[in-house]
Amino acid sequence: MKKVVTMGEIMLRLSAPGYQKIQQSGSFGAVYGGGEANVAISLSQLGLNTSFVSKLPDNALGESAKQYLNQFGVNTDHIIYGGDRLGIYFLEKGFSVRSSKVIYDRKHSSFSQSKLAEYDFDDIFNGADWFHISGITPALNEELFIITKKALEVAKEKGITTSCDLNFRSSLWSFEDARKKMTELAEFVDVCLGVEPLELLGEDGQDLKDAYQKPLSVENYQEIMKMLHERYHFQYVAMTFRENLSVNRNRLNAMVSDGNGFYVSPKVEVEFVDRVGGGDSFSAGMVYSLIQNYQPQDAINFATACFALKHTIEGDANILHHSDIEQFVKQKESLTISR
Amino acid sequence: MKKVVTMGEIMLRLSAPGYQKIQQSGSFGAVYGGGEANVAISLSQLGLNTSFVSKLPDNALGESAKQYLNQFGVNTDHIIYGGDRLGIYFLEKGFSVRSSKVIYDRKHSSFSQSKLAEYDFDDIFNGADWFHISGITPALNEELFIITKKALEVAKEKGITTSCDLNFRSSLWSFEDARKKMTELAEFVDVCLGVEPLELLGEDGQDLKDAYQKPLSVENYQEIMKMLHERYHFQYVAMTFRENLSVNRNRLNAMVSDGNGFYVSPKVEVEFVDRVGGGDSFSAGMVYSLIQNYQPQDAINFATACFALKHTIEGDANILHHSDIEQFVKQKESLTISR
Amino acid sequence: MKKVVTMGEIMLRLSAPGYQKIQQSGSFGAVYGGGEANVAISLSQLGLNTSFVSKLPDNALGESAKQYLNQFGVNTDHIIYGGDRLGIYFLEKGFSVRSSKVIYDRKHSSFSQSKLAEYDFDDIFNGADWFHISGITPALNEELFIITKKALEVAKEKGITTSCDLNFRSSLWSFEDARKKMTELAEFVDVCLGVEPLELLGEDGQDLKDAYQKPLSVENYQEIMKMLHERYHFQYVAMTFRENLSVNRNRLNAMVSDGNGFYVSPKVEVEFVDRVGGGDSFSAGMVYSLIQNYQPQDAINFATACFALKHTIEGDANILHHSDIEQFVKQKESLTISR
Amino acid sequence: MKKVVTMGEIMLRLSAPGYQKIQQSGSFGAVYGGGEANVAISLSQLGLNTSFVSKLPDNALGESAKQYLNQFGVNTDHIIYGGDRLGIYFLEKGFSVRSSKVIYDRKHSSFSQSKLAEYDFDDIFNGADWFHISGITPALNEELFIITKKALEVAKEKGITTSCDLNFRSSLWSFEDARKKMTELAEFVDVCLGVEPLELLGEDGQDLKDAYQKPLSVENYQEIMKMLHERYHFQYVAMTFRENLSVNRNRLNAMVSDGNGFYVSPKVEVEFVDRVGGGDSFSAGMVYSLIQNYQPQDAINFATACFALKHTIEGDANILHHSDIEQFVKQKESLTISR
Amino acid sequence: MKKVVTMGEIMLRLSAPGYQKIQQSGSFGAVYGGGEANVAISLSQLGLNTSFVSKLPDNALGESAKQYLNQFGVNTDHIIYGGDRLGIYFLEKGFSVRSSKVIYDRKHSSFSQSKLAEYDFDDIFNGADWFHISGITPALNEELFIITKKALEVAKEKGITTSCDLNFRSSLWSFEDARKKMTELAEFVDVCLGVEPLELLGEDGQDLKDAYQKPLSVENYQEIMKMLHERYHFQYVAMTFRENLSVNRNRLNAMVSDGNGFYVSPKVEVEFVDRVGGGDSFSAGMVYSLIQNYQPQDAINFATACFALKHTIEGDANILHHSDIEQFVKQKESLTISR
Amino acid sequence: MKKVVTMGEIMLRLSAPGYQKIQQSGSFGAVYGGGEANVAISLSQLGLNTSFVSKLPDNALGESAKQYLNQFGVNTDHIIYGGDRLGIYFLEKGFSVRSSKVIYDRKHSSFSQSKLAEYDFDDIFNGADWFHISGITPALNEELFIITKKALEVAKEKGITTSCDLNFRSSLWSFEDARKKMTELAEFVDVCLGVEPLELLGEDGQDLKDAYQKPLSVENYQEIMKMLHERYHFQYVAMTFRENLSVNRNRLNAMVSDGNGFYVSPKVEVEFVDRVGGGDSFSAGMVYSLIQNYQPQDAINFATACFALKHTIEGDANILHHSDIEQFVKQKESLTISR
Repeated sequence: MKKVVTMGEIMLRLSAPGYQKIQQSGSFGAVYGGGEANVAISLSQLGLNTSFVSKLPDNALGESAKQYLNQFGVNTDHIIYGGDRLGIYFLEKGFSVRSSKVIYDRKHSSFSQSKLAEYDFDDIFNGADWFHISGITPALNEELFIITKKALEVAKEKGITTSCDLNFRSSLWSFEDARKKMTELAEFVDVCLGVEPLELLGEDGQDLKDAYQKPLSVENYQEIMKMLHERYHFQYVAMTFRENLSVNRNRLNAMVSDGNGFYVSPKVEVEFVDRVGGGDSFSAGMVYSLIQNYQPQDAINFATACFALKHTIEGDANILHHSDIEQFVKQKESLTISR
Repeated sequence: MKKVVTMGEIMLRLSAPGYQKIQQSGSFGAVYGGGEANVAISLSQLGLNTSFVSKLPDNALGESAKQYLNQFGVNTDHIIYGGDRLGIYFLEKGFSVRSSKVIYDRKHSSFSQSKLAEYDFDDIFNGADWFHISGITPALNEELFIITKKALEVAKEKGITTSCDLNFRSSLWSFEDARKKMTELAEFVDVCLGVEPLELLGEDGQDLKDAYQKPLSVENYQEIMKMLHERYHFQYVAMTFRENLSVNRNRLNAMVSDGNGFYVSPKVEVEFVDRVGGGDSFSAGMVYSLIQNYQPQDAINFATACFALKHTIEGDANILHHSDIEQFVKQKESLTISR
Repeated sequence: MKKVVTMGEIMLRLSAPGYQKIQQSGSFGAVYGGGEANVAISLSQLGLNTSFVSKLPDNALGESAKQYLNQFGVNTDHIIYGGDRLGIYFLEKGFSVRSSKVIYDRKHSSFSQSKLAEYDFDDIFNGADWFHISGITPALNEELFIITKKALEVAKEKGITTSCDLNFRSSLWSFEDARKKMTELAEFVDVCLGVEPLELLGEDGQDLKDAYQKPLSVENYQEIMKMLHERYHFQYVAMTFRENLSVNRNRLNAMVSDGNGFYVSPKVEVEFVDRVGGGDSFSAGMVYSLIQNYQPQDAINFATACFALKHTIEGDANILHHSDIEQFVKQKESLTISR
Repeated sequence: MKKVVTMGEIMLRLSAPGYQKIQQSGSFGAVYGGGEANVAISLSQLGLNTSFVSKLPDNALGESAKQYLNQFGVNTDHIIYGGDRLGIYFLEKGFSVRSSKVIYDRKHSSFSQSKLAEYDFDDIFNGADWFHISGITPALNEELFIITKKALEVAKEKGITTSCDLNFRSSLWSFEDARKKMTELAEFVDVCLGVEPLELLGEDGQDLKDAYQKPLSVENYQEIMKMLHERYHFQYVAMTFRENLSVNRNRLNAMVSDGNGFYVSPKVEVEFVDRVGGGDSFSAGMVYSLIQNYQPQDAINFATACFALKHTIEGDANILHHSDIEQFVKQKESLTISR
Repeated sequence: MKKVVTMGEIMLRLSAPGYQKIQQSGSFGAVYGGGEANVAISLSQLGLNTSFVSKLPDNALGESAKQYLNQFGVNTDHIIYGGDRLGIYFLEKGFSVRSSKVIYDRKHSSFSQSKLAEYDFDDIFNGADWFHISGITPALNEELFIITKKALEVAKEKGITTSCDLNFRSSLWSFEDARKKMTELAEFVDVCLGVEPLELLGEDGQDLKDAYQKPLSVENYQEIMKMLHERYHFQYVAMTFRENLSVNRNRLNAMVSDGNGFYVSPKVEVEFVDRVGGGDSFSAGMVYSLIQNYQPQDAINFATACFALKHTIEGDANILHHSDIEQFVKQKESLTISR
Repeated sequence: MKKVVTMGEIMLRLSAPGYQKIQQSGSFGAVYGGGEANVAISLSQLGLNTSFVSKLPDNALGESAKQYLNQFGVNTDHIIYGGDRLGIYFLEKGFSVRSSKVIYDRKHSSFSQSKLAEYDFDDIFNGADWFHISGITPALNEELFIITKKALEVAKEKGITTSCDLNFRSSLWSFEDARKKMTELAEFVDVCLGVEPLELLGEDGQDLKDAYQKPLSVENYQEIMKMLHERYHFQYVAMTFRENLSVNRNRLNAMVSDGNGFYVSPKVEVEFVDRVGGGDSFSAGMVYSLIQNYQPQDAINFATACFALKHTIEGDANILHHSDIEQFVKQKESLTISR
């Protein structure tokens, strides 16, 4: 069984019941989630060996986050305990014409107080086949950028495949900072995932500007993917696309390129139980199918199925099994129609 | 007030809250249901006198099932108490692109431990006008096949109209067994109901095979209905049709034949609160309208309204009143457009 | 900050959980609402100074209703305490093909026992810029008709702008009575709001009859609006339109006339979290935008956004902020397309 | 199986969750209850044949009340439908040093609008062995006093045993009225039950006054019971006693006299799940044990066990079985020690 | 109506359901509370005019805290909006032999980021009769100590009575710091409240040490109270006492001195619904009864009733009315027995 | 870190909400538990390495049980998947004078269908220090008796300490069978735990009879413990004692003998949140303290603290940490007073 390591922040998610506004809520549903943790949970549920690396407060909330991961089979032996608090985010689910809202309360979290010396990456990567990060961790602060870079370096030295979900969060850093730092990390990345990998493009911002002026479509993004391959020598670049039919109804698909060709999955219309973590589920689907040596078309179909199905699962992480995903891929024969 | 007797198994249904997976559930909603029990509840709510015949364990769960029936006005005087346990089924409601899942835990139930000698059908059918069964009970085991057959025989002797919802359950018996046994029971049945009454066709399987190769449609099924009338001399054969728009959205209609003509109800698009028991609600609608001497077109329209509306009711059984159904039939004038 | 006074009845609303029938409910969700109270809450949340005038029982339920209003910033200093009981209404939310149901239990409420002498309108209107009522209060009984009329008279004397949501409730009075009484009140009204302001038309019922024979559409209603302006010299007449796609899905828009031209908002398709109070939210949107001197097209767009968004908010009242509404108006650029 | 008829009002009970105040409650638990309905439910659960006579509104709330009774096996064939509304009461459970609170909202209920002509007592009492009422019904209004009296008369004519739970409700009538009317009814009553049967005493109020000046104790009440036997020729008089240790903890016992001797049950300390309906459960225990010809000491022990155990059952009615009560009586051997 | 101003931090309180551990909780109950906010809510519910001064984040959580206060009638016009976040605390209710646990997550809260210049105390105290603070605010940081001192100074200048609930929180500052700072504030305080006002004693720590070596009792604390009066010239010093019978059962009473005599309330045994805020309710009781000019014995009895009753109220604040408290004081006649 | 292996059945526990009867429950709380699983969870939470050995169905319920164990850190690598179903038990919590009730529905469970060949005990015990079983597993059927015996034999061969919680379940086997089989297993057991280890005594039943005729007390059980040491050469024998103050209030303590002396823990009065699993928590406390080489008096105090505290934890297993237990032991100084 292949082993995947992911590193990042896991937060307490507090969600208003049903479709209530926060102001109306006399209680909050509580689960634990975060981009890289969600990927670890999904991969564990798909059948891989996983380890999640992070820093948690040494209190009942830190323990709860750890137990949440353990429940889904994620190894937490490399989690460090200490620091001030568990990051929190409040979620208000939108519906129909009313948008979802998130209030982040993640400042001063234990993970954001991480120090490079606290992580022993030699030990962490022992026996690992894959290492996955996202653009959120390096955005937290300079120390975490350094930690992320160090982790990628060690992983590459050890011959571990690396993937990164670019995940530009404007609340955490400026686009300019993101572009600069992510460009630096990109050289250690084998598989580039994400919605809009634009921050990796353009020293002077010109091609970036051009890219943005085109509508988000499979056609336009092929050119961008090509550029990404050229500049960063990624093995794979994969992106997801969303068409917003309403706040809780989207038409989805995705595209992967291996540098030689483009493979597009058919469109799937989904209505949401819980939109959070769709992209993480897609990343997990890509990591899973690539680590299992799926052909690109099969990989993008599998990952799109993960992506779509996540929207029907309550909580941040897709906890479906490999057989659930396969059943969906097979049933929807259209999904297997390649471009 | 006409009196209808139904016989079968009632189970405890435990459903994951909202759209959670069973693995996420810290509690389960509890109602009681089963095909023939659902028909009895629906008919009672529509205004008929009903009696449900079954065997329940002599404990708080058996009592709860009985009280559930009583609450909706179903007479339970002919229920027998004894045996090991109440059958259970766990329900996980699907949504959008994720399918619903059921885990049956009905083995060794009190009802499945029924003995022929325990049922006094002379007494049970006293004053009854109609007797309804389904293909589930004879599938449980040989003794229950015999009990079902005996019940039908006594009913016919007493001049009671009989209906049967073929309800092939591949988890309970093979198609071959189903065909053999159901064929034997068919001769005692006046009104044949169900989704795919194919197990009643074909000694050598040839016409069956042909039937299956045609898409499920009103047109193709007219031929099959005709065959059923010829072979089994049913008074009525009625079927439902579903077009799956998504896991929780279907387009529905139904067709009945009286041996002379075919009557098709217009299509209704429904979004689901709870899909379970749709067919039982249709059966109840047919029994109700036939016992009340509705014309075939009115009957199929009424039963289709029952069928459609059930999908908006939480729990296994349609508890709507006659006036609720009528209001729907009238409002949707298109429903009255006959073929 | 402009100040708006509204007067009417606030009730305890008891709603069956989820999409359960009342017969299935082991508990009821509890909020407090009523047409004019909903308008006051919405206006307060939009940023205006509001006061709600009513009569409540002097018990924990009356206090709860008051606290509910206070929570959303509505001033309750002019509420009178006394009388027998708080009115109640039970709500069963429909879904898909099953209609919603309301059981009113508002007879003998404290508010319906109001006496003219109990209200000191000079004091109530102190500092007020706008006074809003609906057609529900005068329908309760003769005394409340007199109170409403008196309130309007005093408001007009004081130079306060007045608005009225015609709101014909057939359970409270006959159409004939409504027409007669509302016609009498109309002369004190500046802004006429509502779904079907037909009761204001026709002494002999002839033009009324003609109006009703035309389908409910923007085109047909322009003529009616024109008549209303002519007869009652309203400053503005505004109406909402609904196209029922299913029980929980509508296509909505609205139209306002200022006596010179007609301004129509683009259509918005909404799926419902809670349909109750849609019209009240529209009224609040009109009052807000007119008190803030919006241009008619901007006003109708803003009010339509309030109207549409309310359907996604649990409870009777739209509690969204001005910024939430503005964001919707801007995002949906189509909304700004005027007639 | 013996058959008991009870007549009275059944209300919707809305209770604040846990130990919340009504002002804090975003939902209310919903059950249905009322003195005589509770007695019917208890007797049905103990194993007798029961019928409850009342008048309910012809809406979903009336139907829910009926279904609640049916669930516990109570026959509702003699319930009349019509009138304005279902009576409601709101319950706020006290705890420790904070008292429980009830808000009655029962005015103008369908039952209170009953007319004598609506009840066919010949039919109602067909096959009955016992008729039970309480002092609440005659307190509602003059018509209901007449109906109660008529019911008792017919019962006596038919040789049916009658019992009455005096249940003085100061919110419904004055003590003086109560005394006058209940005295009139007492002549038709065989078994007199209740906490403080004082309203039956004293034409000039003197002995009444004396009685009240003594503390509520077994000793003082023996004298009063003796007076009651003398004046009204009751077969049995039974009373309960409570010692308040805290709001949710009492020490209980009871006494019955058969005109010859006094039989006292041992004391039982109970902590409360739900105090409402304790007295009704005691009444049911007395009716059950007397109809089954228990000896007085066994009867009072059985009824005290019903009384005590009710406090541990959520909802208005004691739904325990005969075996549950018997187990308690036997386990607590002290309970069988007679004075 | 007298007006009381309180100033401090209000937090989101997230409590594990029932008696669950945080690790077991799939949801958290949400209310808003904090020492001085609880006092304001209680005083408002008792019937006074109140204003709460604080700083809240400008997001849905800040708005929710504000609305929570408004619901109970507390004026929030002097609340400032800005800063990073709303402080949070997690509560796990203990039971029997298991202690309650609180996890504070209040660092970096908006209130703790307050600046002196943000508060206009002249405006804040306009029309105020009383100003109440606690020892928590000055413990947060030096700026808040300065703000507190400034507030007290302005209050005294304006002739406003001041009260302070010493409330030593070892998690916020050292005992030594507390003693030094609180001593400095004490000169502006008229009424000194709290469990253990020891930090106000002893420059060299000697008398403090002596005090601590005596058991917590009425007798020993009389000496300490005397010292407090001498040193700080308080008008009143009041303290509460708790005897722990179990984690959720205490025996309580309290003592006040006016510098001339000591007044002790009788003991009350309480079982808990929610222990949090007992001391705040006591403070509110003292402020209320002193502002209303109760005699010392009446004041301490009233405040003890508030204190005891709070333990039966869910949430941080005692929301009972004056009549509820009075009823308790009168019923428990023993409460009026003075020492 | 020491490693403990436990083997047995884990079931789905479905509990009626609050103190409802099963007949009143519209939902059931769901956790997973069983004697040996509870011990494993407790030991894991106390800080040991644990592995639970069992057989689970290969469906979502089996997976949920596994995830439940994983959440608390229990290794499940040696769980076998297959068989018909997950055992279930329904729990109705008693209160005050009403007893708790359990309905077992564990027949035909996957674990009860275990075959000896399915368990590889060499592998299972790899690295283990302790093996714990109970008297429930051998009671299920002959095969499981053989499996238990084999497991104990292999454990002893490998030098692993063994403990057994005698746990006589009259619903599973007769006392005579229990005595015969448990006697056979006892020779492989080092530490004997349980409430009433009487089934291990008496070939002819005579001394057994004598033992039973003495009241359950520390004094009488010392003699019995002595006998047990003599016959079976146990290293330790430990027992718990309960005094029933009410259904939800007990006075508890325990005694251990090491063959030389008796060590008794002081009594603790506890009120219950959840009584189930008290004995399992005691067993875990004994295993923990003995594996950590506590002195007998410290061991019995620690185990009694585990025992007592469990009653305040919702669910089957005590999930408290070592520090929570230690805090209790220290706080309650009386606990350290040895006899």
